[in-house]
Amino acid sequence: MSVDLLSHIRIVLSHTSHPGNIGAAARAMKTMGITALYLVDPKRPPDAEAEAMASGASDVLQGARVCASLAEALQGTVHALAVSARRRELSYVSADARSAAQELVAAAREGEVAIVFGTEMSGLTNEEILQCRAVAHIPADPGFSSLNLAAAVQVLSYEARVAALGAQPFPAVESAPARHEDVENFYVHLEQSLLASGFLDPYNPKRLIPRLRRLFGRVRLEQEEVNILRGMLNSFDKNT
Amino acid sequence: MSVDLLSHIRIVLSHTSHPGNIGAAARAMKTMGITALYLVDPKRPPDAEAEAMASGASDVLQGARVCASLAEALQGTVHALAVSARRRELSYVSADARSAAQELVAAAREGEVAIVFGTEMSGLTNEEILQCRAVAHIPADPGFSSLNLAAAVQVLSYEARVAALGAQPFPAVESAPARHEDVENFYVHLEQSLLASGFLDPYNPKRLIPRLRRLFGRVRLEQEEVNILRGMLNSFDKNT
Repeated sequence: MSVDLLSHIRIVLSHTSHPGNIGAAARAMKTMGITALYLVDPKRPPDAEAEAMASGASDVLQGARVCASLAEALQGTVHALAVSARRRELSYVSADARSAAQELVAAAREGEVAIVFGTEMSGLTNEEILQCRAVAHIPADPGFSSLNLAAAVQVLSYEARVAALGAQPFPAVESAPARHEDVENFYVHLEQSLLASGFLDPYNPKRLIPRLRRLFGRVRLEQEEVNILRGMLNSFDKNT
Repeated sequence: MSVDLLSHIRIVLSHTSHPGNIGAAARAMKTMGITALYLVDPKRPPDAEAEAMASGASDVLQGARVCASLAEALQGTVHALAVSARRRELSYVSADARSAAQELVAAAREGEVAIVFGTEMSGLTNEEILQCRAVAHIPADPGFSSLNLAAAVQVLSYEARVAALGAQPFPAVESAPARHEDVENFYVHLEQSLLASGFLDPYNPKRLIPRLRRLFGRVRLEQEEVNILRGMLNSFDKNT
């Protein structure tokens, strides 16, 4: 691997409350050679306090892309990692930060990837986590697990850099990985087909869609596989 | 190894200038379960700003031992690790943070050990480094290696905790893994459904089934997931 892969990593901060934390996160990621910062609907845009906390990383801050939604920030990515303080999220069992970062950097050979952080107070919403392909957990002390946002960005960025510097190459995928939006469109199609067939009851959906997202999220779908799955759904739709 | 070993680790901050940085360092170490803080002749003792930055780790701050010299802070230790931003220190070639932390935690089985951090501006002096047994280097980006003190404490404390925890087991699956025969029966069902829907042409099957086997083979299906997938196929079958 190579540190060049770090240029394929986006740090995505969702709905951050305090500009100072955005600045501190910009500094943390830059120390590890990661410079692409995406801000999803920040409560307040980067300001003087953010600049002060960035301390030498104001280029990262000034180059930040502000997005209206997480979906926009993830557009074009082939892998997205949700960072959570909880050991277990929805039906995902989270991986530890190290193995999750190794998987992320391996995916970065195929295209753009993202590490996604939620708000200072409550982290990522369930809906946001379901848009990611994997969940990472920093193995903090259970009695005091309150890493601040910049500290969490520091640990994940550090792990990504160490992985980029030296981890084992990941077995190559057969074809190009699917892009985020193509996978999302597949989920939309899947839900429609399941509604039409009667398997998904809109009045009692249970956890069917989250479970299917978890299943297909684990597999790192390839472009052609998404095409096959959608072709399958089309053929089932025709008969419904 | 075990997290109990973390109680043998001292975080030593030498000649720190800003109390706020001491507080932030206290928080960073506590998130990783390390609570013994030693302050060597701080320019200003912990104050209200330090308390504010400690944010929940004021017990660590209040239990801090203030020492007149590094020698005093290291008294009784069996290993001391100097943290340096430079790749090479004196005649030491520094180890990377990960392997240095592993060595430190191994030594913590034998007695007390220390991780030593210098001032915000200039790090440790040569004289201080020579009092330590090893030098650790955080592999930051050479173009922007200015981790702040709390960030450096965070990375080393994280590495020490991960070393103490031992290698993480692979994330456990949520429910029982599917048995081989159940997965095979799913493939049989899938093939029948795809034939019935017309998507699979028996006279020109191409590589459809092998590709789907590869996709579902990668994912390590769980028992319940196989049940869901077969339920889906049943609902599509009914309409065919």
